[in-house]
Amino acid sequence: MKQEYAIGIDIGGTNTVFGVVDHRGDILYRGAISSRKHEKVENYINELHAALTPAIEQVGGINVIRGIGIGAPNGNYYSGTIEYAPNLTWKGVIPLAQMVTDKFGVPAALTNDANAAAVGEMMYGAAKGMKDFIMITLGTGVGSGIVANGHLIYGHDGFAGELGHTTIIPNGRIHAGTGMLGSLETYASATGVANTAKEFLDARPKEDSLLRNHPREEIDSRIVYDCAIQGDAIAKEVYQYTGMILGLALANFVMFSSPEAIILFGGMTKAGDLILKPTKESMEKNLLPIFRNKVKLIFSELKEADAAILGASALVWELKN
Amino acid sequence: MKQEYAIGIDIGGTNTVFGVVDHRGDILYRGAISSRKHEKVENYINELHAALTPAIEQVGGINVIRGIGIGAPNGNYYSGTIEYAPNLTWKGVIPLAQMVTDKFGVPAALTNDANAAAVGEMMYGAAKGMKDFIMITLGTGVGSGIVANGHLIYGHDGFAGELGHTTIIPNGRIHAGTGMLGSLETYASATGVANTAKEFLDARPKEDSLLRNHPREEIDSRIVYDCAIQGDAIAKEVYQYTGMILGLALANFVMFSSPEAIILFGGMTKAGDLILKPTKESMEKNLLPIFRNKVKLIFSELKEADAAILGASALVWELKN
Repeated sequence: MKQEYAIGIDIGGTNTVFGVVDHRGDILYRGAISSRKHEKVENYINELHAALTPAIEQVGGINVIRGIGIGAPNGNYYSGTIEYAPNLTWKGVIPLAQMVTDKFGVPAALTNDANAAAVGEMMYGAAKGMKDFIMITLGTGVGSGIVANGHLIYGHDGFAGELGHTTIIPNGRIHAGTGMLGSLETYASATGVANTAKEFLDARPKEDSLLRNHPREEIDSRIVYDCAIQGDAIAKEVYQYTGMILGLALANFVMFSSPEAIILFGGMTKAGDLILKPTKESMEKNLLPIFRNKVKLIFSELKEADAAILGASALVWELKN
Repeated sequence: MKQEYAIGIDIGGTNTVFGVVDHRGDILYRGAISSRKHEKVENYINELHAALTPAIEQVGGINVIRGIGIGAPNGNYYSGTIEYAPNLTWKGVIPLAQMVTDKFGVPAALTNDANAAAVGEMMYGAAKGMKDFIMITLGTGVGSGIVANGHLIYGHDGFAGELGHTTIIPNGRIHAGTGMLGSLETYASATGVANTAKEFLDARPKEDSLLRNHPREEIDSRIVYDCAIQGDAIAKEVYQYTGMILGLALANFVMFSSPEAIILFGGMTKAGDLILKPTKESMEKNLLPIFRNKVKLIFSELKEADAAILGASALVWELKN
């Protein structure tokens, strides 16, 4: 039997990363394009095809590509569609798996980006051997993939695991994409961290902060991190506050599915203990005693892009020919 | 093969109900004792044994009893123990399944009372044929049983599905049993309804209400219901408020496991549309658009005690001899 390859594609709110993966989970070629550049999804798929073609040629052409697995926000495993994704440019229902199949000429499967990352983590990362865990992706948005009894929870319609959109602070901060109030994503995403920093600066105009060395509109989670590392009090409090809310949400999730571990993944995890410590404290405090000091709260063991690419590519090996 | 029977026992915060059940799910004998009368669990089991003995004799003696299934708050399916149940008299870890086996001389299995009700609903009730649904029990407390991919979610330690203890209003009302703030149970249980009524009466001392015809300490959910039915404005608002909070919580649960239905069960459902209508409105409002107008919010089709007895008894047929 000739060697076959799978393509894994991870569509994030900002960037799309992709890779050609072999059966052992080695990523042979990788690349990235913008998720935001093309208003028309057809043009986006054309650019994706152009970007992947050299890598496909390198491994032996499209005939040795078994299929394409895609992780995308609001991705539906059952229908292969992206539906009403608040963080993407393309609105409504996008039949992405079918469009990719038509363009590349190979089968395609699609799931929630965080579900794909969870599968990657289960096959190659920190969740190896676990039957019950939750993956939380802390990036531009907040995503989640939930594994119970050894299987991803898709729900009756394929949309399960949108934990970033659960309400944590009723009547709290508005979400620019959904219009909903007080969802986890409005606080615990990179965008949320930047907004918390701006709120704190506005509320305490007389307090010195390194954050004030930056124009207000340029403050992002990276700047907050840099200032916190330099000991800035407000920047450090931003992480305390973010962890307090994230931990409260995680406690609720634990009381739902009682996972062995919660695996944090994505750009925000670069903050290390700055985010992990207050999150763990708040999670433990908000748990019923029977759940306390049992759940491992850990960072992903995979490189940021790899888990999603590997997880998406793993969908391919289960495709029927 | 001789006819065999299973015993199903449902331990509630107030009462314990039990029944002798045949293979078809017919409850042949049933009875009840108080869950609160005995401070020592040994005495409780003695009373349970005495109460069940006549029924056991009626069907042919203990030799035709295949086993005993028990639903209990904080019941752990893996270990057969009740652990730190805030609504029960017995504190700490109670090895109830083993104690029942020792007393009756037949195998016993135990799970969360709401899990047992969910199994009953799946086998004989409104969830027949469903692979993804959530059962919410609205009684003295608020319990839950979660089914995903056709299986109960037990979690890594057997304690999954404690949705009544999830935080809905951060820093909200204190829970007398757990000391935690703002959990769903403090608002959406029968106790929560009575407390909301008292809060409303205290906050609006000059407003007339039928509720004021009752001594403050005697107001319970039954009285609130009666006053609401008679058109009392404050009593009706109590249900509006309860439904608003319950619906917010249900929206969060839907975004977790995307169930086909949420089945409400227990004493509070007697309020009918008074509770169902505001709950549904609030749930839909707090859902991401992709989840809206998809989830059936319905009442259990089983008699209140039957689902739990049937569900608990169903555990028995899966016991190894």
